Amino acid sequence: MSNTPRRAGRHFLQIPGPTPVPDRILRAMDMPVIDHRGPEFGKLGRRVLDGIKTIFRCAGPVIIYPASGTGAWEAALINTLSPGDKVLMVETGQFATQWKTMAQKLGLVPEFIKTDWRIGADPAAIEQHLRADKNKEIKAVCVLHNETSTGALTPIAEIRKAIDAAGHPALFLVDTISSLASADYRHDEWGVDVSIGGAQKGLMLPPGMSFNALSDKALAAAKTSMLPKSFWAWDDMLNMNKIGFFPYTPATQMLHGLATSIEMLHEEGLENVFARHDRLAEATRRAVRGWGLEIMCREPKYYSPTITAVMLPDGHDADAFRNLALDSFNISYGASFGRYTGKYFRIGHLGDINETHLMGALGATEMGLALAGVPHKKGGVQAAMDYLVAAHGRSARAAAE
Amino acid sequence: MSNTPRRAGRHFLQIPGPTPVPDRILRAMDMPVIDHRGPEFGKLGRRVLDGIKTIFRCAGPVIIYPASGTGAWEAALINTLSPGDKVLMVETGQFATQWKTMAQKLGLVPEFIKTDWRIGADPAAIEQHLRADKNKEIKAVCVLHNETSTGALTPIAEIRKAIDAAGHPALFLVDTISSLASADYRHDEWGVDVSIGGAQKGLMLPPGMSFNALSDKALAAAKTSMLPKSFWAWDDMLNMNKIGFFPYTPATQMLHGLATSIEMLHEEGLENVFARHDRLAEATRRAVRGWGLEIMCREPKYYSPTITAVMLPDGHDADAFRNLALDSFNISYGASFGRYTGKYFRIGHLGDINETHLMGALGATEMGLALAGVPHKKGGVQAAMDYLVAAHGRSARAAAE
Amino acid sequence: MSNTPRRAGRHFLQIPGPTPVPDRILRAMDMPVIDHRGPEFGKLGRRVLDGIKTIFRCAGPVIIYPASGTGAWEAALINTLSPGDKVLMVETGQFATQWKTMAQKLGLVPEFIKTDWRIGADPAAIEQHLRADKNKEIKAVCVLHNETSTGALTPIAEIRKAIDAAGHPALFLVDTISSLASADYRHDEWGVDVSIGGAQKGLMLPPGMSFNALSDKALAAAKTSMLPKSFWAWDDMLNMNKIGFFPYTPATQMLHGLATSIEMLHEEGLENVFARHDRLAEATRRAVRGWGLEIMCREPKYYSPTITAVMLPDGHDADAFRNLALDSFNISYGASFGRYTGKYFRIGHLGDINETHLMGALGATEMGLALAGVPHKKGGVQAAMDYLVAAHGRSARAAAE
Amino acid sequence: MSNTPRRAGRHFLQIPGPTPVPDRILRAMDMPVIDHRGPEFGKLGRRVLDGIKTIFRCAGPVIIYPASGTGAWEAALINTLSPGDKVLMVETGQFATQWKTMAQKLGLVPEFIKTDWRIGADPAAIEQHLRADKNKEIKAVCVLHNETSTGALTPIAEIRKAIDAAGHPALFLVDTISSLASADYRHDEWGVDVSIGGAQKGLMLPPGMSFNALSDKALAAAKTSMLPKSFWAWDDMLNMNKIGFFPYTPATQMLHGLATSIEMLHEEGLENVFARHDRLAEATRRAVRGWGLEIMCREPKYYSPTITAVMLPDGHDADAFRNLALDSFNISYGASFGRYTGKYFRIGHLGDINETHLMGALGATEMGLALAGVPHKKGGVQAAMDYLVAAHGRSARAAAE
Repeated sequence: MSNTPRRAGRHFLQIPGPTPVPDRILRAMDMPVIDHRGPEFGKLGRRVLDGIKTIFRCAGPVIIYPASGTGAWEAALINTLSPGDKVLMVETGQFATQWKTMAQKLGLVPEFIKTDWRIGADPAAIEQHLRADKNKEIKAVCVLHNETSTGALTPIAEIRKAIDAAGHPALFLVDTISSLASADYRHDEWGVDVSIGGAQKGLMLPPGMSFNALSDKALAAAKTSMLPKSFWAWDDMLNMNKIGFFPYTPATQMLHGLATSIEMLHEEGLENVFARHDRLAEATRRAVRGWGLEIMCREPKYYSPTITAVMLPDGHDADAFRNLALDSFNISYGASFGRYTGKYFRIGHLGDINETHLMGALGATEMGLALAGVPHKKGGVQAAMDYLVAAHGRSARAAAE
Repeated sequence: MSNTPRRAGRHFLQIPGPTPVPDRILRAMDMPVIDHRGPEFGKLGRRVLDGIKTIFRCAGPVIIYPASGTGAWEAALINTLSPGDKVLMVETGQFATQWKTMAQKLGLVPEFIKTDWRIGADPAAIEQHLRADKNKEIKAVCVLHNETSTGALTPIAEIRKAIDAAGHPALFLVDTISSLASADYRHDEWGVDVSIGGAQKGLMLPPGMSFNALSDKALAAAKTSMLPKSFWAWDDMLNMNKIGFFPYTPATQMLHGLATSIEMLHEEGLENVFARHDRLAEATRRAVRGWGLEIMCREPKYYSPTITAVMLPDGHDADAFRNLALDSFNISYGASFGRYTGKYFRIGHLGDINETHLMGALGATEMGLALAGVPHKKGGVQAAMDYLVAAHGRSARAAAE
Repeated sequence: MSNTPRRAGRHFLQIPGPTPVPDRILRAMDMPVIDHRGPEFGKLGRRVLDGIKTIFRCAGPVIIYPASGTGAWEAALINTLSPGDKVLMVETGQFATQWKTMAQKLGLVPEFIKTDWRIGADPAAIEQHLRADKNKEIKAVCVLHNETSTGALTPIAEIRKAIDAAGHPALFLVDTISSLASADYRHDEWGVDVSIGGAQKGLMLPPGMSFNALSDKALAAAKTSMLPKSFWAWDDMLNMNKIGFFPYTPATQMLHGLATSIEMLHEEGLENVFARHDRLAEATRRAVRGWGLEIMCREPKYYSPTITAVMLPDGHDADAFRNLALDSFNISYGASFGRYTGKYFRIGHLGDINETHLMGALGATEMGLALAGVPHKKGGVQAAMDYLVAAHGRSARAAAE
Repeated sequence: MSNTPRRAGRHFLQIPGPTPVPDRILRAMDMPVIDHRGPEFGKLGRRVLDGIKTIFRCAGPVIIYPASGTGAWEAALINTLSPGDKVLMVETGQFATQWKTMAQKLGLVPEFIKTDWRIGADPAAIEQHLRADKNKEIKAVCVLHNETSTGALTPIAEIRKAIDAAGHPALFLVDTISSLASADYRHDEWGVDVSIGGAQKGLMLPPGMSFNALSDKALAAAKTSMLPKSFWAWDDMLNMNKIGFFPYTPATQMLHGLATSIEMLHEEGLENVFARHDRLAEATRRAVRGWGLEIMCREPKYYSPTITAVMLPDGHDADAFRNLALDSFNISYGASFGRYTGKYFRIGHLGDINETHLMGALGATEMGLALAGVPHKKGGVQAAMDYLVAAHGRSARAAAE
């Protein structure tokens, strides 16, 4: 409660990243720093550089930056493009908008397909736009796999098909920051040229590390890209990475954490990881419907397995609700953005969380809605439980057969 | 799920101790060991030896043993009693029975007041028993403040009154292992001679440390006690403790943890700590009743603020339920004992837990009951939420007034 | 030894950064990640943004990047300069050379004053160069306070005087990565426009965070700078920093570590920190002379308080020596660069180390020289001890007076 | 230095235990507590109960107590003996004296062979004493393998032979607290009945756990022992240990640490561990002789591989020296005892330390002697380095052949 100086118990971090870091990862990072030019580091370097490919599902190289995710956005653009290049982007929400702003600051010229922020990127709209680009002036299509600000997932394989259907040679750059290692993702199979990832979501790490997974086409584009680059430049990275090292001081502790993260994901099994996220997301949506509230994402096709944004009835301030829940129940939610500021809150259900944890979060949410006087129906938590019991029952029967 | 090698997410440790250790305490313990004969240790020693008195609410000394709680039972007996001494004990459950067995092994002669394990110690029965002891052969009355095996709290102040009413000179030894720093406890005010505590419950520490809080009468008794003693002997401890040190190697890391624990309890405020436990316990009982299940403790007077034991309908195995819940929802409960083995499970709701955490635990429990096919009604979680919302609302209104 | 799979004992990390991270800092970082948009973070943000100024000794803002030190080099250049701008740099060693290469990659035009890598930047040479720049085409003077690759310290106050004496308006950018919080440094007093710092040296943190301390002149330059920028851009940072937040996800754990680092530095006292580094550096140099070996830095004026590079006699491979010492004595040294590759090794004596630690490192070095068959005299360790005893004796007498 | 509030750098803990705990062990202990009645614990329990046998080199059971080492002394006595039993003990120093005092407090009757505290237990004296015990009234011979207070090692195999030569049926109880996992020890081969061990020395753990390794003869003796016992009783322990559990709450975190400790010892190889300790001990003794000081242990036959006690010249206070070294060089030594109080200090060189660490400790010692004005010769550190270089040279040549 707000009048006690210490909030008891564990904080429930339901922002859509950073996600709760497992103790095993925190402890792997809580170790003396090793010489980043010594033989022990070389082994670690090779281990994570190989391992991260199994997460992006790619055969080519993955660049690991000692910088938080926004840096990997910048890296993807400046390694492949030149000043004045046109890029096609889709306004799926706040983060897509920020990426667009970044492109402008870097001297690129974004074309920006509008949405109402309540769906992902529409393959048909992209195809249409590319078909209209007769002179092939668009050099890259830039899409977020999962729009973190609204909880809408874009079908990347369909976007690839749209680009191909349009017969367009543009590069395909995809932000997987809030979907990697929690939603199914396939860099190679889906024909992505640069996949952008971050540490602090499905990889269950603290913030401070980001990724560019590269295709051959991206590597070729890098050779002619004219944007100035040094810290983010792929070439020096690729040279040093061959022997497990980095051209400048890497974030050693983050790499220790990454090695453990990859190990844990494979212990659970990526398919199990994705199924778990699907299950928790569906339970969350059932809770929201149970409360009689509206899910921000208005088409089931675009439902996110990692984030659910919940709209409050008109006249009710989502930020006030969030503050009350934090004070009363030690839980954090994601904020709202843009024209929707104050109108919704986001429940992150990604990373190292399980059913019991989710029930805590949903229970706190239902109680918070009541305390805050937000009009809603009881029964959301019950609906989530009913769904999870049925899901576990099915799974147990399947295992027995 | 049982067929994946890694259970995702945080384990919910709802055994009635050890309780979840806060990260702040774990980190305070995760430090290089210091010289237990050096000046830095001396400061630590004085700090915890003084601090722990504020938890027992006593002015006299508290002995800190580098040993788990069972040792402090033994210490209380062998420092105050002599071979063949009669002690009065009450069979409130499994732990009372174990203490009785220990007394026998140490050469004492327990008189054991029976119960059906579903209530705490009855002051009237004790008074009656003491009145009947015309020759004052009973040297100590030994009671558990909270019977960990069943979740029944004994009113210690009333037992004190019963002893006084009987005009009996027996020592009063109280086990506070599963109540200290979570239920209201007052060593001095309630006239307890030896209070026995452990680290791993309300103090939120790992197991491996235990306590004897002493009255002047206990100190006097120690001078004539004839049971052989060395490791547990109070005298050497008291001498060395004067300057902050210990006669033999203490559990240094546990002492660092204890210093932090005491600090955290006072940051929250002991009264707030007790109120939080009361609130979570009542919410848990409302959930149990909502499920239509029976609470082990059959008289509200004895309800425990830290543990609720839940009886399953006949024919349903509580251990099978616990295993299924562990496999499916990554949650541990306390087991059942004695003639009730397999008939109940215990939910620990003590230590560093909050409402959101509890809703996770209760949600997992309701889902586990469903998965296990235990006959019950839906609505337990809902009842708990309704209670907690009302409780927070009252508290918020009170704060506003 | 190399034939055992585990090297016993603690590794002695004598590379010139990352330096040994104190347990207190590692534990402060080993904590659940908090919401980087919540109130608790806001307090942390303000605390470190204020605190870091006391380390740079500046009144203006300090930018904190969630990226390793090389990024802060890039940030300093692209926030203040425009394509084609001339910058004056001094080839003090490998890192100066890398910064020059970076400037070129970013489209700047470095003028590069040569040295033999065995001294710091010469104020007279800079003054002369600037005087020759009649048209004031040079937009920035870029100097490393401490050249990490050779162990030479440049007198920054004298460089400031040289710029002023030349009446030149160029910005003054200084890399303090391997000197901050270990050698005396005064951003404001010395008239530096951008000071570039990193986490993993004197601040005793792991790598993954870097700094730009700014003057008003730097802030003004940023308004007209034409190099494209987004991740590194100061403007968004400054806006958000006002309320303790960051425009994109910060490296939360690093910030927790930074708060603790600043606290520890002030507990010891910055003047004491500098005196300790001076003392350990002098002891190291006495050891090197005692061994009859040559110190890379050939003018005492430029001796580094944080790093001593030691030249081996011709025909002896410094890398072979380093490998043998690592295998035999679990110690890492810094490597050699450029035309001197294999000719010297570097002893880092910065960060959280004390006399006893240094004697371990110097002892291992003297033993390693013997094992590796490097011609040298015994007595280096003895000379270091003699110096430190005398230094402590003086200090004790001074304290007593 | 004493006038700064924070001592920089790592503390060198050269007390003869607790020893420096490796980070890997501290991190293994810095984990959420698990249910000590659940399946995961069962695996841990079996793992450590089996693993600890490989350290004691015994086939029979080892009892693990959640209590510091002194408790295991008490356990060994009260599980095997009865009130009034005679035990033969040797006054090798302070800890032997304390064990004797404990025996008296427990109602046993020690016969105490005197020494001047400067050698270990003499096999001939024991044989002679046992031969004189015509009526076989002595029920146990109690010896410390390594007398921690003086640094003298007793040849246990020879004591066994002495008992056998005397044809005496007494039990053989051996304290290995400051030798286990650092000096060669063989419970079965040497015919020991109860080996007493502690966590905080060669096992590299914090204090808070202790051991009794048992022979069949000890188990048989336990059946007739009449001393009262409950917490320390072997029988309940042995029953529960069969399935990996404990009769009362174990020190869970210590068990996690123990599992890691055993793993690390086998990674290095026990023979390598012993050789390392021998090497460091000999280097330490050469340093002491180099300083012209006297080693407490006056017969090389009894030299301890884990502790070297150093006598100061008359008129020089060892405690003043220790305090000055702590203040000046952040190093802790062991204190002196009994009639020698203030006349010597002890250097612990056991546990997870290596040559480089030892050189730090010896360097600080030589500097401390100078600062404290203790008459001594320079050259101790040099002598230690010369020895270690030669030892490594021999070892490298042996490996090459």
